[in-house]
Amino acid sequence: MATKTLASWALALHFTNLTQPVTDMAVKSIYNWAGCTIGGYALPPTGVTYDALFPLLPESAGNSSILGSNAFVDMQTAALVNGIASHVDDYDNTHADTPVHPSGPVASALLAVSEWKAPVSGKDFITAFVAGVEAECKLGISVYPEHYDVGWHITSTTGSIGAAVAVGKLLGLDLEQLQHAISIASVQVIGMHESFGTDTKAFHVGRAAQSGLLAAVLAQNSLGGSLEGLEAERGWANVVSTRQNLTEELSTLGDIWEITKNTFKPFPCDRILHAAIDGWIQVHDQAVEKNLDLTAIVNITARTHPRVLFLTDNPEPQTGLDGKFSVYHAAAVALLFGEATPIQFTDEAVQNATVADLRKKVHVTSDDAIAEHEAFVTTEFEDGTILEVHVEEALGSIEKPLSTTQLKTKFLEHVGNHIGETRAQQAFDGFSQILNATDVGRISHSFKA
Amino acid sequence: MATKTLASWALALHFTNLTQPVTDMAVKSIYNWAGCTIGGYALPPTGVTYDALFPLLPESAGNSSILGSNAFVDMQTAALVNGIASHVDDYDNTHADTPVHPSGPVASALLAVSEWKAPVSGKDFITAFVAGVEAECKLGISVYPEHYDVGWHITSTTGSIGAAVAVGKLLGLDLEQLQHAISIASVQVIGMHESFGTDTKAFHVGRAAQSGLLAAVLAQNSLGGSLEGLEAERGWANVVSTRQNLTEELSTLGDIWEITKNTFKPFPCDRILHAAIDGWIQVHDQAVEKNLDLTAIVNITARTHPRVLFLTDNPEPQTGLDGKFSVYHAAAVALLFGEATPIQFTDEAVQNATVADLRKKVHVTSDDAIAEHEAFVTTEFEDGTILEVHVEEALGSIEKPLSTTQLKTKFLEHVGNHIGETRAQQAFDGFSQILNATDVGRISHSFKA
Repeated sequence: MATKTLASWALALHFTNLTQPVTDMAVKSIYNWAGCTIGGYALPPTGVTYDALFPLLPESAGNSSILGSNAFVDMQTAALVNGIASHVDDYDNTHADTPVHPSGPVASALLAVSEWKAPVSGKDFITAFVAGVEAECKLGISVYPEHYDVGWHITSTTGSIGAAVAVGKLLGLDLEQLQHAISIASVQVIGMHESFGTDTKAFHVGRAAQSGLLAAVLAQNSLGGSLEGLEAERGWANVVSTRQNLTEELSTLGDIWEITKNTFKPFPCDRILHAAIDGWIQVHDQAVEKNLDLTAIVNITARTHPRVLFLTDNPEPQTGLDGKFSVYHAAAVALLFGEATPIQFTDEAVQNATVADLRKKVHVTSDDAIAEHEAFVTTEFEDGTILEVHVEEALGSIEKPLSTTQLKTKFLEHVGNHIGETRAQQAFDGFSQILNATDVGRISHSFKA
Repeated sequence: MATKTLASWALALHFTNLTQPVTDMAVKSIYNWAGCTIGGYALPPTGVTYDALFPLLPESAGNSSILGSNAFVDMQTAALVNGIASHVDDYDNTHADTPVHPSGPVASALLAVSEWKAPVSGKDFITAFVAGVEAECKLGISVYPEHYDVGWHITSTTGSIGAAVAVGKLLGLDLEQLQHAISIASVQVIGMHESFGTDTKAFHVGRAAQSGLLAAVLAQNSLGGSLEGLEAERGWANVVSTRQNLTEELSTLGDIWEITKNTFKPFPCDRILHAAIDGWIQVHDQAVEKNLDLTAIVNITARTHPRVLFLTDNPEPQTGLDGKFSVYHAAAVALLFGEATPIQFTDEAVQNATVADLRKKVHVTSDDAIAEHEAFVTTEFEDGTILEVHVEEALGSIEKPLSTTQLKTKFLEHVGNHIGETRAQQAFDGFSQILNATDVGRISHSFKA
């Protein structure tokens, strides 16, 4: 029944069913996604993908925007490229109970469809977005951590299904069609950990967005699939995970809103690093206050959750992307610069000799007793001073979320670096006021060059 | 090293390295694929997909043909639609050591690219095709049966990688680019058993073709991926299977040619049913010879390999597609009509009252001692006559392959039903003489309406 349960819940969902915290978080999730996507256009994987596909596209291909550029293309290409851009900085958002980054696959697919099928109102967009995010996160919880630990990138493996639910709802599929769409999406399982630290990680998110969109379009046009793709003996959950409790998790749809557990990243790298980075930035600030010499550090340690070394044990990163998966690089930039923004994770920053030198002084140990959002960090200076910080809850975690002001600043800085302050403000206005939009497809026109 | 081993072998492969049996089997595999694809255009999943995507395509979208139609589209769409068509009748081909149907993903991607990047010679096409098929089958063996038994559709899960290898070779990728292409393809894992008996099964093959093509194009344009996507701890083989021996299997590349173990289907349904169908057709022929009344059958039995019931235990199929996964339907049509061609697996044939009646008299048991290509079938008539056949090797198996004449007849009948005898002969001439083609992209023009 899981597939039918999810499909019928999604189709029945109406904007008036959404509570205020759900709507608020949906709007934040959407504009944070848009900021990451516009800002992410400048990074190689986005441009590479667009440039590779461009010669294959027609001259006047469609109405769907490539955010951060002024291009309009067909909706499949837009979903792919925007999905890549949304995740390329690892700066997006994270569901607090799983490592799912929910907005990318769903919003990238939905915006592309909304621009094609205009006009779509802000309320319809938000309702479909919430349906898609709930689908992703409920599925994520149902198979986490077993599914993740074997090596699947849970954002994209659940993302294609979330995108299909959202797009299917927006396109007005009937119940059986949406069950088919879910099943067609579920057989396209995208993303593995081995891609982390490469361009392909962001590709996962774009391909998930595109796969879910395609599934919904094909189901609407009567391509048949299983009615039980999620729960069948040799269907999604059992094939991709050694454990699943779909029935239990889907029974809470509409009662426990997963989207209210969404969190936004203060640092553009894997969330598992955030607690330690938060700690080292505090060390930096204390050191500045005490007039300590930040170039005279002799030893740096961290005790962290085991997943830190599981995912980021790369002592010699070569590129900005590598740096996002190196606890050693994260330590070095946080201590040296007192911040960890996209500028600290460029190729240039990773290849900086002072940073490379400091990375060698970092020693990290795993401790099963430490939570994911927790870290103990120490830094020892040449003069013998030792600074210690215990981060109980990392900035950006659900217990210590970014404020609305911090979110706005994050958007304006990241987007402004790419398209200038004026257009960044126009883009922020458009996406942050999406609730009142009568035609979501016009937002991307409001901040064109 | 597996990813590098595969990529460097594929890049080094030259037409002159191919032995005569390899070339012969490659040509047969290609024209059998083309016949299935042209004939498969008429079935719903192909047309549904094309019709769904057509409004999203530009007016003059590309040079890649949709076989069986007169349409030319962009190469991504062509790879998807032709891949679907190639598998929709379950009439294609099977690697003897695994259930991989190797031609569909590779040839569908390659033809689309060859039409775009014209001129591609027949020899270059065949060489790239062999590289892709070897990749698929070696990977298949490396994870079979564990990977298959959990529910993955091994044709498409290995197919995206095979397509990437073939297209990457044709496009002239360098070694690192091809390693990236393999890895980008490997994170797009398509297809599960739960789709069997639905339109989505054929979609798997098309999406695999398209995913591999996309991976190769992106890698050529510098999208980065892992260099060890196949063998890494959290890469393809370990994520999709509980067991793998990539190193061992890839060490035989170029020594043991998997393509020489390719077999062609005499019946348009899962290969596991072929032995029993072969037996029941023999019973039919004996009954006709003995003047027995085929409408006066009281009991039908089969003892078969356990995978028959694992995959085809559907006593009440509703559609032609269902019928392909119903041992009961297969028995009924083979006994009644003495043949099992695409005509016996239409919705009409499945809904025929006489057929439905006869299906109820079929009893199948599993026997671990029986091989996949073996079956014991019996049929009891009202007058008490019992006919028994022991099929030791099913028609179409590697021990009892279709002859070149049978393959040609299969092509001409299947394709002729769809586009007429004259054009079927033109298409056969074009694809069966591919070895001498100077521009493979012209073949589809040679049999246009």
